[in-house]
Amino acid sequence: MTLSRSADDLGRRLMERLDEAAAYSMPGQGVTRLFAGDEHRRLLPLLSSWMRLAGLEPELDAVGNLVGRCPRALAGEPVLILGSHQDSVIEGGKYDGMLGVAMPLLALEALREQGCEISCAVEVVAFGDEEGVRFPSTLVGSRALAGTLDPKVLEGEDKEGVTLREALARLGADTSRLAEVRHDPERVLGYVEVHIEQGPVLENEGLALGVVTALTGIERHRLKVSGKAGHAGTTPMEGRRDALVGASAMVLEADSLLRRQDSLVGVVGQLFVRPGAVNVIPSEVEFTLELRSPDSEERLAGRRKILASLAGIAKERGLELMTSMNYEAEGVTCADWLVRALEQACREEGQPTRRLFSGAGHDGLAMNDLTDIGMLFLRCKGGLSHHPDEAILAEDAGAGTRVIMHLLTKLHDMPRTDRWMRPSP
Amino acid sequence: MTLSRSADDLGRRLMERLDEAAAYSMPGQGVTRLFAGDEHRRLLPLLSSWMRLAGLEPELDAVGNLVGRCPRALAGEPVLILGSHQDSVIEGGKYDGMLGVAMPLLALEALREQGCEISCAVEVVAFGDEEGVRFPSTLVGSRALAGTLDPKVLEGEDKEGVTLREALARLGADTSRLAEVRHDPERVLGYVEVHIEQGPVLENEGLALGVVTALTGIERHRLKVSGKAGHAGTTPMEGRRDALVGASAMVLEADSLLRRQDSLVGVVGQLFVRPGAVNVIPSEVEFTLELRSPDSEERLAGRRKILASLAGIAKERGLELMTSMNYEAEGVTCADWLVRALEQACREEGQPTRRLFSGAGHDGLAMNDLTDIGMLFLRCKGGLSHHPDEAILAEDAGAGTRVIMHLLTKLHDMPRTDRWMRPSP
Repeated sequence: MTLSRSADDLGRRLMERLDEAAAYSMPGQGVTRLFAGDEHRRLLPLLSSWMRLAGLEPELDAVGNLVGRCPRALAGEPVLILGSHQDSVIEGGKYDGMLGVAMPLLALEALREQGCEISCAVEVVAFGDEEGVRFPSTLVGSRALAGTLDPKVLEGEDKEGVTLREALARLGADTSRLAEVRHDPERVLGYVEVHIEQGPVLENEGLALGVVTALTGIERHRLKVSGKAGHAGTTPMEGRRDALVGASAMVLEADSLLRRQDSLVGVVGQLFVRPGAVNVIPSEVEFTLELRSPDSEERLAGRRKILASLAGIAKERGLELMTSMNYEAEGVTCADWLVRALEQACREEGQPTRRLFSGAGHDGLAMNDLTDIGMLFLRCKGGLSHHPDEAILAEDAGAGTRVIMHLLTKLHDMPRTDRWMRPSP
Repeated sequence: MTLSRSADDLGRRLMERLDEAAAYSMPGQGVTRLFAGDEHRRLLPLLSSWMRLAGLEPELDAVGNLVGRCPRALAGEPVLILGSHQDSVIEGGKYDGMLGVAMPLLALEALREQGCEISCAVEVVAFGDEEGVRFPSTLVGSRALAGTLDPKVLEGEDKEGVTLREALARLGADTSRLAEVRHDPERVLGYVEVHIEQGPVLENEGLALGVVTALTGIERHRLKVSGKAGHAGTTPMEGRRDALVGASAMVLEADSLLRRQDSLVGVVGQLFVRPGAVNVIPSEVEFTLELRSPDSEERLAGRRKILASLAGIAKERGLELMTSMNYEAEGVTCADWLVRALEQACREEGQPTRRLFSGAGHDGLAMNDLTDIGMLFLRCKGGLSHHPDEAILAEDAGAGTRVIMHLLTKLHDMPRTDRWMRPSP
């Protein structure tokens, strides 16, 4: 089948829509649209109109997701879910989240305009919350679909003391129907999300699109290096136990070990020095270490290697080192059949592509508890995201839209692993 | 001449006096006695009584120094000035400053008890302020003696908005007579200060006493390393411009270069990371670098070497480095004749000693503008000062007192360089 809409035309239309949606923002630079806030509420009619143009029937569910269903979905057929999140960070960009809502809706609309048949029932979801900025919770919408949302998060408060339950009521969501949001796994085929890469890999390789193989696992550590304070003028260099010199050696060592690993990344993002006086030898330094890998074993091995190495540095320098891991989230693997389906759709569109993993978390982390997931990444300028200057190319937006159109018309051709066969999470 | 008072007896008496003085403190741990505060005022009668026992006539001068003069000094003979400061840091110790007031007074008292003649006219000064804790100024008392005090510092305010002028009036000092505090250089022989070492050198070498050859020069720099922020999960390790990794390499390099220098010490005491989020690659790190050396040329050469090396690290790592020196104070050399006089007095007391430089600033920095200076260091436990646990041994206190007694009876024997011969400062 030939798709008659040109990538140029689709790209232009998609960029216009993304600009239009970006106007629903709190004052300030870039886009600030928080979960269940006024801007979210005001955006809903626009998203609903896009859904209707795509042939979907919109409905605001109990946790603030706007769900658009095609007639076959309403009739009860198993659905392919596409979507992403409507919310942004504070002063974020136009594309993180909204791209994955607008693109499948435009793809469906274009297919409808051309009278093309879609190969399965579809739902497009604009998740209310993925960024977790306003309330203590995160991935509220996708967890509710997967049935893993703890209803207690509804009592979580924003910084003004408004509970999520109250905010959802103001949005127009009927939280008493929370249980109905949960999807029956037997009536879901899979979940596909389009997202900006938020990294520089595709841009560096001159590729518009990439197919995600896994979503990274994340762990965070807090490390405390203790040495001995002293007057910086009267204490000879020899024999000092300077906690900052030790911590500096650790930061360098961690960086150096991470550079030798293929699919493990990490960062020391926070570091605090005590007592922090210009003329006093630092007695204590606390810093964070975050590690991410799509491969749990590699992450665990990397953690062991790094922490052992840092302990060695502490010993060598007569310093104490205390470490504690205060966060750990397992990574998620994308379903092979969806990876291949996305790759084939890219090929049909004549778009070279590569496989890569996502170093950031996404709604797929929660959706994986419900169904197979797949993700398509779109290159973004300079790898920048969570920033007003977040940018994509219209031609990439058009190419991505056409890839989703290919996917939607060809999905039934895909040889797929029965997802009931994969090990339970 | 034989000094009949035993070091044991003198040490015991000195420790008692230092304990007594330590009671004049604000509440809290250790000693907190600020310039021209209530504790300073309440301490004056005690210090005056010690001065009278030493045969000196006490007078509170216009800037809050308590000056004790012997009859020959009152008669106009050139004086040897001995002394140190009465003030402490917040929650400091008993010995930093007060040792150098109490010890010469006890030495004079002991000599008087024995009917020993002193070889020259003496003044003992308890300087009001050396720590510079309460007001924006520092070394107020010694600068006033040297005639280098800017009268504007009297308008400086403490954090309650009390000016130094007001505080001095409450102390009982007549600030209108500021000009009279200045000493005529022709009527001063020299300045000798006894102080705890505030470092570990003497303790490490098993010495009670050390003779200071120079007071360190100090310079302070502010350095800013700029790299590029980025999502720590989605930015590959390769190609990152992590400002904290760069700054860590700089901290290590500075430490390593400093360890290779003989009489240059330094520290990175403050370091701040931006944006300082657990999952964001640091884009900017600011840190301080302080360098100290008694030798200006070595300090300058060290500065050049270190800053050039850090600039190289920045370049190598694709980072920007901005540096600015925001403080510089030249070091001061102790007068050779006073160094030798103190060494000879130690020898007479049977105290092995060594020469060392002072890494901390002292009243001598200001007194050097008036006259030749000499300093005797007393070992302190663990090199600790500016801390409630600051400690010295009674036997060292006794030995030091006897050394000052030797000095006071023998000073006229010393071959001395005419201080008018030395280059002007």
